[in-house]
Amino acid sequence: MRHDGPVTTRTPLSDLSADELAARLTEVRADYDALHKRGLDLDLTRGKPGADQLDLSNGLLALPSSYRDRSGADIRNYGGLDGLTEMREIFADLLGVDVSAVVCGGNSSLTMMYQVVTALLLKGGPDSPRPWSQEPVVKFVCPVPGYDRHFTMMAELGIEMVTVPMNADGPDVAAVRALVADDPSVKGMWIVPTYANPTGAVCSTEVAAELMAMPTAAPDFRILWDNAYAVHHLTDEETKSADALGLAAASEHPNRPIMFASTSKITFAGAGVAALAASPENKAWYIQRLSFASIGPDKVNHLRHVEFFKDADGVRAHMRQHRDLIAPKFAAVEDALAARLGGLGIAEWTAPTGGYFVNLDVLDGTASRVVDLAKDAGIALTPAGSAFPHGEDPNDRNIRLAPTFPSLGEVETAMAGVAVCVELAALEKLTADAEA
Amino acid sequence: MRHDGPVTTRTPLSDLSADELAARLTEVRADYDALHKRGLDLDLTRGKPGADQLDLSNGLLALPSSYRDRSGADIRNYGGLDGLTEMREIFADLLGVDVSAVVCGGNSSLTMMYQVVTALLLKGGPDSPRPWSQEPVVKFVCPVPGYDRHFTMMAELGIEMVTVPMNADGPDVAAVRALVADDPSVKGMWIVPTYANPTGAVCSTEVAAELMAMPTAAPDFRILWDNAYAVHHLTDEETKSADALGLAAASEHPNRPIMFASTSKITFAGAGVAALAASPENKAWYIQRLSFASIGPDKVNHLRHVEFFKDADGVRAHMRQHRDLIAPKFAAVEDALAARLGGLGIAEWTAPTGGYFVNLDVLDGTASRVVDLAKDAGIALTPAGSAFPHGEDPNDRNIRLAPTFPSLGEVETAMAGVAVCVELAALEKLTADAEA
Repeated sequence: MRHDGPVTTRTPLSDLSADELAARLTEVRADYDALHKRGLDLDLTRGKPGADQLDLSNGLLALPSSYRDRSGADIRNYGGLDGLTEMREIFADLLGVDVSAVVCGGNSSLTMMYQVVTALLLKGGPDSPRPWSQEPVVKFVCPVPGYDRHFTMMAELGIEMVTVPMNADGPDVAAVRALVADDPSVKGMWIVPTYANPTGAVCSTEVAAELMAMPTAAPDFRILWDNAYAVHHLTDEETKSADALGLAAASEHPNRPIMFASTSKITFAGAGVAALAASPENKAWYIQRLSFASIGPDKVNHLRHVEFFKDADGVRAHMRQHRDLIAPKFAAVEDALAARLGGLGIAEWTAPTGGYFVNLDVLDGTASRVVDLAKDAGIALTPAGSAFPHGEDPNDRNIRLAPTFPSLGEVETAMAGVAVCVELAALEKLTADAEA
Repeated sequence: MRHDGPVTTRTPLSDLSADELAARLTEVRADYDALHKRGLDLDLTRGKPGADQLDLSNGLLALPSSYRDRSGADIRNYGGLDGLTEMREIFADLLGVDVSAVVCGGNSSLTMMYQVVTALLLKGGPDSPRPWSQEPVVKFVCPVPGYDRHFTMMAELGIEMVTVPMNADGPDVAAVRALVADDPSVKGMWIVPTYANPTGAVCSTEVAAELMAMPTAAPDFRILWDNAYAVHHLTDEETKSADALGLAAASEHPNRPIMFASTSKITFAGAGVAALAASPENKAWYIQRLSFASIGPDKVNHLRHVEFFKDADGVRAHMRQHRDLIAPKFAAVEDALAARLGGLGIAEWTAPTGGYFVNLDVLDGTASRVVDLAKDAGIALTPAGSAFPHGEDPNDRNIRLAPTFPSLGEVETAMAGVAVCVELAALEKLTADAEA
């Protein structure tokens, strides 16, 4: 999936002579100056849906038309910690799990993840020898590049992060195995299994099976399976997520995975419905913890979503409308990068088949410079290193591009500018290296 | 406020002879048998709004009519950790605080309380020497009787509870002072300041001022000021809550109180808006913690409420409609208890001027028996002792009555039955005592 643009007759920059590099640097500086003069104000930083995507769900604003669930219960009142059954059924279908495994919550799966981690720290899980906060050290395996909010949560809560590479078929299993086999302080692992943030990688069933089966020194090892983009396809190839709960149960580690998802990038980013799915023991544990902090989720919002979608197929049809709106933006990213950088040997980028991001790897040591150049030219990019723990990319090469929020025209303009910055930063480095 | 029913010519049961007691016991047993035969199925357990109360807010179901806030921002998307400004303004007005102090969150103030306590445990507050979880012991002062969910949260999180009496004007300040002055492990205190759960007591400004000013051994002492019933008046005397934040700032303990409220018993119990208000330092600390767990609250629900109420006066007018529906139920409780128990000297109960509960104190040692008798007769009461830490009422005399959810007719029937149970349990005890 990672590639280098179309076949091209361009000469890789590394094959250029010092004089040729210097000449090219002069040209690209001129391009950058022209870019800078345009006084742009564009933002590719965050994976937010565009206004046209949000418009797809405006029908929600006047719903629900009723305040009773299928059983006749009044959903305006307190109660029902695990959420509206009809909403749980939709998530169960989308996630490929039994409805009994599902809890529907508030508007944020990130909040549910935080609840789980803090509960593990303060109380421990069903199979923990003690609360994690009583361990001398707690570590989590973090595939990189990964989701910045997973990593900032770990840092906030004092959990050490150990990294493994994120491959095209999921985390590097051998690297994970090596970390978890003998060290009981390695208590868990993050993964975005489908259309990962930011690489777009999809965890294969084989990799998922190994992760669920591998021996771990910690008896209460948890894989936080953040399936944020389970149904967020960008092509006809509508990838099915690996059956994490089923694989874990089959290898006698039923409590290992805890699955998360939400409608944040399906309906309204700020007003959707989040869900968690887990083994019977994990679910009972989670609901028990939750019972001390809540008298039930917003079931009116659950019913609003149920009326809007009817069923999981309603969600799938809705996601195809999202795809129609955002696939052209991803194509624009591809086109802009290929047009300027193809064949130069200074950048690789992904062509994701789903999700919200394009992962751009530039010449080692230049990502920060690219982001700075872009910023000075009025193009906001996610800070270099964001996809790594503590914001530290050891190679300073990774940049996450989020093309959904700006308009198509803005994406085109911004990405043409980003390509200039990538080339300029590379030429600066290569000419400096040549001089050294 | 606590009283013993109307002036009556009845003889207190304690003045009856053994023979008279035995005769009366026989009569009341017959009443109870008749009650039992009715096969009732009534529930006075939880402080839930009735369906007619929820109906008052059905206008919310078709709102909002827009998805832009006053500034033009798209409230469907992520962002705005402290909530919609217009919603914060309404809470600021209702709570008598500056809008800058207010954070609006999800559907549950209990969840915000839990977030605050867990954050104090895992991170400590702005003025904490260390995270509370690293202290050998953490204790909270709990006025009793109090709110069961405060106490179960403490037990869940391993925080020890030390009790003080809840008086008619708030917690017994001398008792609180004695607990907090020298013991740095006493880190906080719960209070429901207005129309307290379950006694209906209102914390006076004098008591509030003393609580905010008193010396505490812990430098990071917190008063969790759960103003759940701030605007839930039952009479024309619309009590104004003490200005906790202002009093605390004036006595140079600005970070001591953290205020909580919600619209759970204003609009929809399960789908309202919760709020927190605190000093600038506490608010920044809370928002910082929240930023690791959320990308913003459900601002669509905030706007829905803003459109529905327009402003704080809209809320106040709405609360008068609630009062019209529930004040007769509180009157029915009073009438039933006075009719059967007045003058017998075996029960005291409150006549609250706001809130959701009537506090019934029966003859010492008989509350559990009353609840069991009622249960057998098909009347569900909150378990005896619920209003005390660990569910243990040292005198076994306290029963919390919640009359809002059942219909008026059901309240009348249930409370007539409860009064029989109170008298029967008292007679059982008095006759047994007389024999002993």
